Amino acid sequence: MDKIRIGIAGYGNVGRGVEEAVFSAPDMELKAVFTRRDPDSLQLADSSVPFYSVDDAEKMTNEIDVMILCGGSATDLVDQGPYFASMFNIVDSYDNHSQITEYLSSIDAAAEKTTAVISSGWDPGLFSVMRLLSGAVLPDGSSYTFWGRGVSQGHSDAIRRIAGVKKAVQYTVPLDDAIKMVRSGIRPLLTARQKHRRECYVVVDPGADKAAIEEEIKSMPHYFSDYDTTVNFIEDEDFVENHRKMPHGGMVIHSGFTSGNEKQIMEFSLKLDSNPEFTGSIMTAYARAAFRMAREGNYGAKTVFDIPPKYLSERDRPDLIKALL
Amino acid sequence: MDKIRIGIAGYGNVGRGVEEAVFSAPDMELKAVFTRRDPDSLQLADSSVPFYSVDDAEKMTNEIDVMILCGGSATDLVDQGPYFASMFNIVDSYDNHSQITEYLSSIDAAAEKTTAVISSGWDPGLFSVMRLLSGAVLPDGSSYTFWGRGVSQGHSDAIRRIAGVKKAVQYTVPLDDAIKMVRSGIRPLLTARQKHRRECYVVVDPGADKAAIEEEIKSMPHYFSDYDTTVNFIEDEDFVENHRKMPHGGMVIHSGFTSGNEKQIMEFSLKLDSNPEFTGSIMTAYARAAFRMAREGNYGAKTVFDIPPKYLSERDRPDLIKALL
Repeated sequence: MDKIRIGIAGYGNVGRGVEEAVFSAPDMELKAVFTRRDPDSLQLADSSVPFYSVDDAEKMTNEIDVMILCGGSATDLVDQGPYFASMFNIVDSYDNHSQITEYLSSIDAAAEKTTAVISSGWDPGLFSVMRLLSGAVLPDGSSYTFWGRGVSQGHSDAIRRIAGVKKAVQYTVPLDDAIKMVRSGIRPLLTARQKHRRECYVVVDPGADKAAIEEEIKSMPHYFSDYDTTVNFIEDEDFVENHRKMPHGGMVIHSGFTSGNEKQIMEFSLKLDSNPEFTGSIMTAYARAAFRMAREGNYGAKTVFDIPPKYLSERDRPDLIKALL
Repeated sequence: MDKIRIGIAGYGNVGRGVEEAVFSAPDMELKAVFTRRDPDSLQLADSSVPFYSVDDAEKMTNEIDVMILCGGSATDLVDQGPYFASMFNIVDSYDNHSQITEYLSSIDAAAEKTTAVISSGWDPGLFSVMRLLSGAVLPDGSSYTFWGRGVSQGHSDAIRRIAGVKKAVQYTVPLDDAIKMVRSGIRPLLTARQKHRRECYVVVDPGADKAAIEEEIKSMPHYFSDYDTTVNFIEDEDFVENHRKMPHGGMVIHSGFTSGNEKQIMEFSLKLDSNPEFTGSIMTAYARAAFRMAREGNYGAKTVFDIPPKYLSERDRPDLIKALL
């Protein structure tokens, strides 16, 4: 059987995660990586795979079955998503929840003869599937999502924009008391502050006003002001040694009742050494689904809610039924 | 919109669980319950729903959209499954794994103009979906399934067949050391004995030989001989007071690696006060899916692997995307 030919658009951490995942998928091959940087400046682990400028992609519609978009929601996908979806089957990890309906419509309009799976990371993505499943099975119940302990890229970026900050990383930490309450089945109403705290590690420029920086972080609306936040100023060496990995994780806990008083708890959790590699692995599995749905003529914008689980696996249905059902 | 008209075939613990789940589903109504017992001897909580003999079902194909089969795999479903699938959309919780391919074929042959979802409990069922998802996302990994602490009906039945045993219940208990090893990511090879132990509570007839019964339980092949088993002889009052509920639970843990050495752990767990009510709730959600797939002309035997998550929820797709993605 011919392998599914994958393209990667955007070669950051997630792009490298997709690269790894495609190399370990026996039914896929990586055909090309597209970048907005100078293609000649980049080099893959598997050097036979060429880099191209993103502008060259439109000439390669016959050579790539699924394009995996590894750009960010805020800056890249709003334009790149519809652009690529008009030419290729795509997968992305769009995560700007407040705009998701509009984004889906723009992709759907572009994907007339292609299949486009949006928001296929772990949240949105796998966690969304868990919220749907658990709510469908236990409608008399509530779902709670906790994130962490792990690095939030958005919050780290927000700190780095402060004058005097050289490097920064922010860990989102779920609060044990909240998790315990949810698992007990009491279905508590929890504020943002009661669910997570925020832990920041910051390297400042020489002579920077640490007290002012700490105050600016803690009072930042949306990002930090609604949370208990701790700010730790550290040396550059400490940062390089201890804060360059990208672990993450989290959980969806659904506590519900049947026949009024029988408590039923469903829980899905992730503990990840590498968030971008895990995200890349999920997107690669959904690329397989996009390829198969496109082959059936099932075009348009799709979400993780629309995709039968079997389409994600490289194994065929009889094998899945025998081995995993 | 017209409600989905549900029939229940088989009114034991799971049947009652389905009854509860249908009553709390706003888009469904329970039309009839079919039993092999004398229909006049039974009474539902909602007395307006009539009981019928299973033999009357064939006259009611126009009154029921989905028949939920609540019989057991060993005794009932092998015949009932194909019989009902030839006339109705069905859902069952067939769980005899070694025969599942043959059962699926027999259902598929019968379901020419109906949609038949088999094996839709939690294992097989939701746990199967988790094994598939995690294996598809992390192919360099291993899935481990643990059951319990909870009542195994099959093992309890096996004890009750021993001469001199009046009542018996068997709890399957997962072993903490095994769970810890799996979560650590070392991907251990575990024997049956290393994963679970078996805890039995037995009420005997007056004068019964307890030592002989204990020996017979512990040496029973398949059921107990491969496990560390404890047998507790208790009084009838103790049994009635402490061992009549049907709690259960379990977990699927998948430990995998990306790029060779980044550990990624996915875990799905259930903690259930009532196993039959939870099973009934899952089957009811899959009945909704069966109804929708049948309406689209998507006939034949289906498993949980074939069904897009959105079909399980009463909410429509735009609402799901807005609220849960």
